[in-house]
Amino acid sequence: MVIQKIFSLATRGNGDMHDITESVTSIVESSKIRTGIAHIFIVGSTASVGTIEFEPGLQHDLPELLNKLIPPSRNYKHEQAWHDGNGHSHLQATLMGAEITVPVANSTLVLGTWQQIILLECDVRNRSREVVVTVMGE
Amino acid sequence: MVIQKIFSLATRGNGDMHDITESVTSIVESSKIRTGIAHIFIVGSTASVGTIEFEPGLQHDLPELLNKLIPPSRNYKHEQAWHDGNGHSHLQATLMGAEITVPVANSTLVLGTWQQIILLECDVRNRSREVVVTVMGE
Amino acid sequence: MVIQKIFSLATRGNGDMHDITESVTSIVESSKIRTGIAHIFIVGSTASVGTIEFEPGLQHDLPELLNKLIPPSRNYKHEQAWHDGNGHSHLQATLMGAEITVPVANSTLVLGTWQQIILLECDVRNRSREVVVTVMGE
Repeated sequence: MVIQKIFSLATRGNGDMHDITESVTSIVESSKIRTGIAHIFIVGSTASVGTIEFEPGLQHDLPELLNKLIPPSRNYKHEQAWHDGNGHSHLQATLMGAEITVPVANSTLVLGTWQQIILLECDVRNRSREVVVTVMGE
Repeated sequence: MVIQKIFSLATRGNGDMHDITESVTSIVESSKIRTGIAHIFIVGSTASVGTIEFEPGLQHDLPELLNKLIPPSRNYKHEQAWHDGNGHSHLQATLMGAEITVPVANSTLVLGTWQQIILLECDVRNRSREVVVTVMGE
Repeated sequence: MVIQKIFSLATRGNGDMHDITESVTSIVESSKIRTGIAHIFIVGSTASVGTIEFEPGLQHDLPELLNKLIPPSRNYKHEQAWHDGNGHSHLQATLMGAEITVPVANSTLVLGTWQQIILLECDVRNRSREVVVTVMGE
């Protein structure tokens, strides 16, 4: 059995982190799939999907870390070609990854108590994001 | 067809790396699924699942790299809020990722000779970890 | 329904990036699966699969970033044991990840306009790579 849904999300620039666990859970629970997997994918090349403990400290720390390891800079060749100021956004999103798969058991997501699914905006401006959720199983 | 199993693992603090290939292979082989995928997920926000050549050199190098890029520090906002000394553990685990999917062919995992599935503990203390394996296919 | 195919690719050393979107799309479209997922996996421990905007700027920037964060060095324990000069290759590949899953809708991959699937060679010499694509759904 396969159920696929898309939901949208407005984001506000680099480092804006959203807890999307409830949106995904709601799709899983309405799918009637009891055992299997839920795949979560962000369309686009300057945002990321992953897991983290969603609390204010890490909401600050993760974007700060990414901007330390992969800082905004005019020296990226991407920047020199396109001048859109988001070379680091592409690199941050690629390193973090565009998708994650989470197990489904007893008709809901299997996650730790302090483990949430997040969408992390890496781009430098406000965006409207589309997240594709595919639930498969029986 | 969907088979889902959970196994547990005791870990001993930041950088403790375990080869879980055999545990996953055993679940795949007993599943009777010949072609498909095996999804491996670590429950919790301070450990990671991935692939690497599992040999003593890289068992040392990967944790050392992660502690260089994402060092233990009291400056993380997570640390200032929770004082549990594991801000870097959360960030390391999020960057490495909590899950991986491996193809299944001829009733076993498709992996390179020097490519193993690992669980990497990023937390600062001993933990008991649960790994959820979901095998899907036909 | 499950379709699994393997394709090969010749690569030319560290930082050689290939757009494999068309190869994967062709497998998805011939699979007759309309809705589901496509899983893309690189066999081996010194190359990576991911998504990025495939353009000359980022083709330069991503390998440069990885070599800045995870530089070639004789100090890796892997290096001291094996002397094959690719300790950083293993670490780059593990951090980037060996696989990605992309949704399938209307019999094709769901990707952003500027979001391609890439294979990134991290090893230091020419390699012949095998990519396993598993398409599942209905």
